[in-house]
Amino acid sequence: MHLRIGLLTGGGDCPGLNAAIRAIVRTASNSGDEIVGFHHGWRGVVEGDGDLLTNERTKGILQAGGTILGTARYHPDEHEGGIRAVLETVEREGLDGIIVIGGDGTLTSAVSIAEAGVQIVGVPKTIDNDVTGTDSCIGFATAVETAAEAIDRVHTTGESHDRLMVVEVMGRTTGWLALCSGVAAGADAICIPEEPTRLEELASMLRKRHDSGSNSSVVVVAEGAAFEDELIADQGSVGARVAASLEALTGFETRLTVLGHVQRGGSPTASDRFLATRLGIEAFDVAHAGGPSALVASISERTTSLPLATVAAGPKPVPKSYIDMARRLTVL
Amino acid sequence: MHLRIGLLTGGGDCPGLNAAIRAIVRTASNSGDEIVGFHHGWRGVVEGDGDLLTNERTKGILQAGGTILGTARYHPDEHEGGIRAVLETVEREGLDGIIVIGGDGTLTSAVSIAEAGVQIVGVPKTIDNDVTGTDSCIGFATAVETAAEAIDRVHTTGESHDRLMVVEVMGRTTGWLALCSGVAAGADAICIPEEPTRLEELASMLRKRHDSGSNSSVVVVAEGAAFEDELIADQGSVGARVAASLEALTGFETRLTVLGHVQRGGSPTASDRFLATRLGIEAFDVAHAGGPSALVASISERTTSLPLATVAAGPKPVPKSYIDMARRLTVL
Amino acid sequence: MHLRIGLLTGGGDCPGLNAAIRAIVRTASNSGDEIVGFHHGWRGVVEGDGDLLTNERTKGILQAGGTILGTARYHPDEHEGGIRAVLETVEREGLDGIIVIGGDGTLTSAVSIAEAGVQIVGVPKTIDNDVTGTDSCIGFATAVETAAEAIDRVHTTGESHDRLMVVEVMGRTTGWLALCSGVAAGADAICIPEEPTRLEELASMLRKRHDSGSNSSVVVVAEGAAFEDELIADQGSVGARVAASLEALTGFETRLTVLGHVQRGGSPTASDRFLATRLGIEAFDVAHAGGPSALVASISERTTSLPLATVAAGPKPVPKSYIDMARRLTVL
Amino acid sequence: MHLRIGLLTGGGDCPGLNAAIRAIVRTASNSGDEIVGFHHGWRGVVEGDGDLLTNERTKGILQAGGTILGTARYHPDEHEGGIRAVLETVEREGLDGIIVIGGDGTLTSAVSIAEAGVQIVGVPKTIDNDVTGTDSCIGFATAVETAAEAIDRVHTTGESHDRLMVVEVMGRTTGWLALCSGVAAGADAICIPEEPTRLEELASMLRKRHDSGSNSSVVVVAEGAAFEDELIADQGSVGARVAASLEALTGFETRLTVLGHVQRGGSPTASDRFLATRLGIEAFDVAHAGGPSALVASISERTTSLPLATVAAGPKPVPKSYIDMARRLTVL
Repeated sequence: MHLRIGLLTGGGDCPGLNAAIRAIVRTASNSGDEIVGFHHGWRGVVEGDGDLLTNERTKGILQAGGTILGTARYHPDEHEGGIRAVLETVEREGLDGIIVIGGDGTLTSAVSIAEAGVQIVGVPKTIDNDVTGTDSCIGFATAVETAAEAIDRVHTTGESHDRLMVVEVMGRTTGWLALCSGVAAGADAICIPEEPTRLEELASMLRKRHDSGSNSSVVVVAEGAAFEDELIADQGSVGARVAASLEALTGFETRLTVLGHVQRGGSPTASDRFLATRLGIEAFDVAHAGGPSALVASISERTTSLPLATVAAGPKPVPKSYIDMARRLTVL
Repeated sequence: MHLRIGLLTGGGDCPGLNAAIRAIVRTASNSGDEIVGFHHGWRGVVEGDGDLLTNERTKGILQAGGTILGTARYHPDEHEGGIRAVLETVEREGLDGIIVIGGDGTLTSAVSIAEAGVQIVGVPKTIDNDVTGTDSCIGFATAVETAAEAIDRVHTTGESHDRLMVVEVMGRTTGWLALCSGVAAGADAICIPEEPTRLEELASMLRKRHDSGSNSSVVVVAEGAAFEDELIADQGSVGARVAASLEALTGFETRLTVLGHVQRGGSPTASDRFLATRLGIEAFDVAHAGGPSALVASISERTTSLPLATVAAGPKPVPKSYIDMARRLTVL
Repeated sequence: MHLRIGLLTGGGDCPGLNAAIRAIVRTASNSGDEIVGFHHGWRGVVEGDGDLLTNERTKGILQAGGTILGTARYHPDEHEGGIRAVLETVEREGLDGIIVIGGDGTLTSAVSIAEAGVQIVGVPKTIDNDVTGTDSCIGFATAVETAAEAIDRVHTTGESHDRLMVVEVMGRTTGWLALCSGVAAGADAICIPEEPTRLEELASMLRKRHDSGSNSSVVVVAEGAAFEDELIADQGSVGARVAASLEALTGFETRLTVLGHVQRGGSPTASDRFLATRLGIEAFDVAHAGGPSALVASISERTTSLPLATVAAGPKPVPKSYIDMARRLTVL
Repeated sequence: MHLRIGLLTGGGDCPGLNAAIRAIVRTASNSGDEIVGFHHGWRGVVEGDGDLLTNERTKGILQAGGTILGTARYHPDEHEGGIRAVLETVEREGLDGIIVIGGDGTLTSAVSIAEAGVQIVGVPKTIDNDVTGTDSCIGFATAVETAAEAIDRVHTTGESHDRLMVVEVMGRTTGWLALCSGVAAGADAICIPEEPTRLEELASMLRKRHDSGSNSSVVVVAEGAAFEDELIADQGSVGARVAASLEALTGFETRLTVLGHVQRGGSPTASDRFLATRLGIEAFDVAHAGGPSALVASISERTTSLPLATVAAGPKPVPKSYIDMARRLTVL
């Protein structure tokens, strides 16, 4: 029997979405199934805006950043009649299930669609890497490389000018990106949401570091980093406020770099393309098998599927062991 | 109590060795322990050629490829008096243990030193990724990116010239690098040691592929790939013989690229630096704790240690599930 | 006769400075001359803070970003007694001349030292590429690659989310970096200091562009871009004000990325290493020859030297022909 | 009046061809002219295999390596009736001229078409950079980055293993790629066609170098490098023979890397995209103006056009000044 399966990408864009889409369309085509791609996430399902994805359409997209389907932060359960509209599209299009490539928000929102009776197969993607149940999310590996390369660059400027460099990276609720890129690029301090930083202590450690011969330091700050003491009130981002505070506390010339949207963009690394391909195929297999709604996951070397409700546990924090490791390598 | 721990890198060089060395020296320095770095692998231990590694000495090496200690394919158990010389160095230098960063060969050889009474802590590194017991080995992630990027490049040349492009990558006993880089870069066929390829069947599939509109294909071949039918006898590498055979069988203009040493070199990716840092710290902790010989490993998100004898199980083949996945995406 | 030549890097740091330093030290060493490297630009000369640079000291720096000498925006002619202190250092150190690697500011300031009787050999470096007399300045080529890659990344995010993306790049007085990276990365509009942009017209063109099927656009803005109409008053950078203005005028969701310090950092491209090596050797030859003060320059395939006063002509604007070209490829 | 202009890419593929095609099609479209793209170089013209290129068709190709038109090493003047077939296609398609993007071979061959009465506008492209009349050819800048990055990688392997590393790069008649990438990546010796290398002298210098403390060296060899003494007779490439000879002469463990097709592939650097865009627009303008056949060129900061016959002067060798520079930085 040939199936007809919906597919959408939701939430913020990231590298690797197209690699997943390609893998799903290719394996579906081998099985004789059809994939209906909806535009701009759930909004496309609600508005019935989708069309058939073919091998031809997905040719050459493996290396491309972004998503050929477009994406949006739109949750049907938060809109009057949203879920009903989804059900109507499923009915009208004759869909046997929907594969949803999304982050914590999009997938959590998909649970309510699943409860309304549609088979949902969730594929975790987010540069924040905080979907519960999987080791890695699509897009994270590339974002770590991008952020680490930027921190590498900032190091050389700091050293040439004897400066304190503050780099703000994404991560509103978890510090995965800040911690992994910071450790990889040899940051001297890393501030994350999971464990509040005491800025006065950090400043005193940085002064001590410079007293013993270093002439510059790099501090990586997650967007959602927590602090025990009050930051200097500044209108800017958390990075701007940390930079102002550290400059005041240490007396070192300080410069801020906010990485911004470059963290989401660009061609996926081979590692992200491989992960996206593995998760995409697993998602198709689960959808094709027609069982209950599920979240596909990569655990160690296995690709597997978990109950979709796994995502409801909320954002997955950075493991304590990683935080301890970072602490041993940085001034704090 | 302060310890004195030996450290060496053995086998082929790869990206991330310096990141591991740096992490070990930094954490040892925090604990008041001393690290004696030996030059050129086990040869340095046998010859007593080593010196103290300091934070100063390891400054700025996180991003550097290769190894500041030098490396060699030298196994003390294969040399008359080799093991005795190691024991003498251990005695003379007052070493409490030796951290050995190596691949399958170096680590297997380390087992005999451990049996002679020296605490050995093995750290898995190899672009072949085939050390049993760990999800990933230091150097593999970078090699996959390098190989995939090269395959990406070869794709565009193939398409511009209507050619069959054969790319030979490293991997004498296992196909990790060929499979992961091949899938990531959208190779049309991948030949590995784990499952023999039938070249005639491959040629026929490639012809079919070109008949249905494609004008070029990329075939990735591991150095140690197995074949069911005989290759055209050519004096060159396996890649050269596959290229000659496929050109004869398909009639397509065929070109070979042998990636060679570039696969080992270069700055490690952030992912490799992070893994090397994690494994380096774990290795120091195990050495510092002073228990039995061990292999440190990364499994899922955990860093852990296993009995050193784990490596004796031999090279870890690519999982069956990866091979199945590759098969579904390629012409074979 | 063996000479003793001073060397400093001044102004903002950029990739390629170390490659130039290495070339100067290597060729000097071949000639038996000595190079005294001063720290933190002119400040090091004023304070007599310098030491002998050897081949050993400059080993392995070819690929490194930043400058091993450190740099500073310090002009002796703007400090009471500054020039006198320089002359004293020249006397005390027995310097036959000083090689100054710097941008428009540092080199212009060097003219007054030359007038005080010291042989100055200027080497043009700046990611702004605006030193008069040379086709290219050290650091520019790398900055263009970095900025273009960032714009490439931002493109994919814009397309996935149907957004207007504004990217602010460096360039206070000239638009070299904005124009070259913008054209290379296919920006839809580029705002530079040399020709004022009419924002209303730009907004209307962007609306037209989106009406005819495009769903996103990328606007590159130099820090010092000029505008004919008033920007929405915003406290942020010029990019922030352009983004706010365009969002208001077009109604498109708009996002800003400020590239910041990453534009200065990182390993130099091969092209910058080659240019730095050529200019470094030329500078040494001119210093060794002992003639009048000069600016070394790269013109077409030639490396040559010009009167140092050439730099006094002020920042070199982007050629009219480049601006015309950009205009033909963008919406404006 | 609206024109109809043919367009083809000939010779070996290289990065930046698509950027040139895009620029030509975009500016033609602005002028109301039509561009007919022929497939696989001159063969497409001879066979009348071409179609109209639109902005839609060239969307998103700026960053793509290779050429959407395909290419071939096919010269109409070497085939019976070749030139007549070209003239017939020109007549039948109503072409006002043909823009030919090609290297030394393709452009020289185009001269005979021009002499037969067709307006030819040549655009120089080749990773060999040896078209007479222009500072740079499309594709060269990217190839230099690719080769230099590979040499960087090989350096770290050489240092880790105490080896002599030989890297063979492209360049049959000129040493542009070998010299520029070798100098940029700090090669210890560079062998090119322009000046024969004395291998015995090279070996003796390398031995001296290793005697004074270096433990590894990198020798870059152009495919067409000339030698004064006889190489060890080996069946392999010139690189293989140089490696065998140097290993015999020095006694150092030696390894060979042949870069191969990766040098042609991949996404163009920003610098190549900018050059291709400039030359593409100039070519369109010259074709649109309808004058005599011409070669467009980049000289210093200017884009200009020269008589097409300029290319007949033959391949442009590396300037003497570059060779002298390389000599001062390497052991020879």
